Amino acid sequence: INPVFDALPTTVFETMSRLARVHGAINLGQGFPDDPGPEDVRERGARALRDGWNQYPPMMGLPALREAVAAHYARHQGLVLDPETEVMVTSGATEALAGALLALIEPGDEVVLFAPMYDAYLPLVRRAGGVPRIVALQPPAFRLDEAALAEAFGARTRVVVLNNPLNPSATLFAPEDLDLLARYCQRFDVTALCDEVWEHVVFDGARHRPLMALPGMRERTVKIGSAGKIFSLTGWKVGFVMADARLMRGLAKAHQFLTFTTPPNLQEAVAYGLGKPAPWFEAMRAGYARSRDRLADGLRGLGFTVLPARATWFLNIDVANLGYADDAAFCEALVTRHGVAAIPVSAFYPDAAVRNIVRLCFAKDDATLDAALDRMSGLA
Amino acid sequence: INPVFDALPTTVFETMSRLARVHGAINLGQGFPDDPGPEDVRERGARALRDGWNQYPPMMGLPALREAVAAHYARHQGLVLDPETEVMVTSGATEALAGALLALIEPGDEVVLFAPMYDAYLPLVRRAGGVPRIVALQPPAFRLDEAALAEAFGARTRVVVLNNPLNPSATLFAPEDLDLLARYCQRFDVTALCDEVWEHVVFDGARHRPLMALPGMRERTVKIGSAGKIFSLTGWKVGFVMADARLMRGLAKAHQFLTFTTPPNLQEAVAYGLGKPAPWFEAMRAGYARSRDRLADGLRGLGFTVLPARATWFLNIDVANLGYADDAAFCEALVTRHGVAAIPVSAFYPDAAVRNIVRLCFAKDDATLDAALDRMSGLA
Ligand SMILES: CSCCC(=O)C(=O)O
Ligand SMILES: CSCCC(=O)C(=O)O
Repeated sequence: INPVFDALPTTVFETMSRLARVHGAINLGQGFPDDPGPEDVRERGARALRDGWNQYPPMMGLPALREAVAAHYARHQGLVLDPETEVMVTSGATEALAGALLALIEPGDEVVLFAPMYDAYLPLVRRAGGVPRIVALQPPAFRLDEAALAEAFGARTRVVVLNNPLNPSATLFAPEDLDLLARYCQRFDVTALCDEVWEHVVFDGARHRPLMALPGMRERTVKIGSAGKIFSLTGWKVGFVMADARLMRGLAKAHQFLTFTTPPNLQEAVAYGLGKPAPWFEAMRAGYARSRDRLADGLRGLGFTVLPARATWFLNIDVANLGYADDAAFCEALVTRHGVAAIPVSAFYPDAAVRNIVRLCFAKDDATLDAALDRMSGLA
Repeated sequence: INPVFDALPTTVFETMSRLARVHGAINLGQGFPDDPGPEDVRERGARALRDGWNQYPPMMGLPALREAVAAHYARHQGLVLDPETEVMVTSGATEALAGALLALIEPGDEVVLFAPMYDAYLPLVRRAGGVPRIVALQPPAFRLDEAALAEAFGARTRVVVLNNPLNPSATLFAPEDLDLLARYCQRFDVTALCDEVWEHVVFDGARHRPLMALPGMRERTVKIGSAGKIFSLTGWKVGFVMADARLMRGLAKAHQFLTFTTPPNLQEAVAYGLGKPAPWFEAMRAGYARSRDRLADGLRGLGFTVLPARATWFLNIDVANLGYADDAAFCEALVTRHGVAAIPVSAFYPDAAVRNIVRLCFAKDDATLDAALDRMSGLA
């Protein structure tokens, strides 16, 4: 087995979901909602399975979905994309990320990554032959720091990976930080790989700014979106990649050999869903903000220290002074003895630099959140 | 863009399907059937979209599907697989193949490949850092040759990729050839990556023999299957990987970072479908055999030289003496001027060693086949 993979543990999300099943725990670990997803979108997908085309769609995605993606991002983020040459459909954002790294990196290229980071990034960079340069962001603000960027970027930097909004910190990058990063990308002729799957799940009037929209970034940004996150259908595995046509030619080759294509009925349903009017997105956000507040207020009421959560389906608690060795020890006790699964945030740091933060998913029914709170009482 | 991908053309299947759309041609190129797939299987998938779980399934696949895969291969091929540790679900056989190569190969490892080969193999081997050692098989029998194996296998050989039944030749490997290959795998301690997606689509009483079932091969074989091929639903992109638990641990890591998981509603439908009784598989094969005969007889009647087709959805014709420069020139004329898309078999040879064979897909309605024959009359 290739040593990059051989040394790896199973992803913490899978491990925790497994523990949750084994222990009959309420699963606030892996990020998926209780919400079954919009009925009309699912109905559309079901109808296409019955009456539609179930053979290979075009490799780049159904034209209807590529057009819907271009129209959607024009409307929501002011991006101008050619659906023919600048939009591609993938089997989830994970495939998009894997394909982009395999396509963009040559062995020996340096790749700048920010910690905390989603656990797929580092092994994918390594398996693609990239040399990771990791910049650790400091809680609670997770700001980009010019000195750190100056140290990380250099003549051999080929790609920087940005996750914005940032999972697990539930933060958005400040406009000045994005400007700073854009300057560095241009100064060092670097491609930005932007995992923006949480772009629609932002709260308190925050507005997501796509890095691609910044001056000078249109031609050097690969933007990744996810229908699973937009429509609360994480199992559908329909992702989008947006990039300049020149970059897209390379990305398409990787896609061609990773999955080739994505089920057409789900593509058709997502194409329909992306056209939903603005109030639908507002209502989706408002619903998740209410769930966030319910869990945050409940946890504070129990005595936990809750960090601010401005985006994603997650909030974080500080477990430093609760008598556990670290976040992993807390999570193990929580799932095995108290019946609630959560994610230790150290899993998002390659060097486990932060060991006192635990992530909880609030994308759940009130009853689920209340039951979890009940089980967590007495722990803080 | 990484040079492995940068130099590549778009896959011939996509290119030909595109040309077919542009020219209003009958598409006998890319392998997909006119058959809409079994109604009950599609209905099952539709119901699960409406009433079922649309969030992340377990990373290795729904337990129901893993159990169905194990039961299916026990019944049809006598394989004994532990559904917990020896079966994994992927987003199509392409992902299974990509993941396996990324997991099994370390840069510098040699990989034995046989030409003709599916066009994804070579770039995937190269991008994984493997050094290809290509053995050219000779038409019309495409036998494995001991002298060629002796030259290709060596101390640095890590993996051999076998496609059986073989696309595009529409042949099955002879039992003695499989025995020979198994001996070489054991002698050189090599893992066999077996793309057996056509295993059920065999004709004239032929029986597929999985390499994994041969003595000494159980622990060193990775077997790949495809629901798309079994159920004539090529857009569904549900594949299976079967391997010894020790190998599977590595394969699962690659899967974790390539797609992570596959839509649960399609998994549920495939789990149901795999339980169909033997007569269903017989009828499926008989239907495709009838279509093969209809196209083959028609082409012979038009004066074409038709090669035998014992498996897959494809048959081949020899275009050597029809007045075209090569197979690609024939296919270009065929799609642009005569309105039928086909695949030049030279695309399956890295060095285009064979340039006189054209592949046609017969998995079509009688009316489609008859219309194509009509358009091809006068060409031979
Ligand atoms: C693919 S499992 C992880 C899902 C997710 O985005 C998260 O929980 O952070
Ligand atoms: C993924 S497109 C190719 C489909 C196929 O198996 C073939 O036509 O050979």
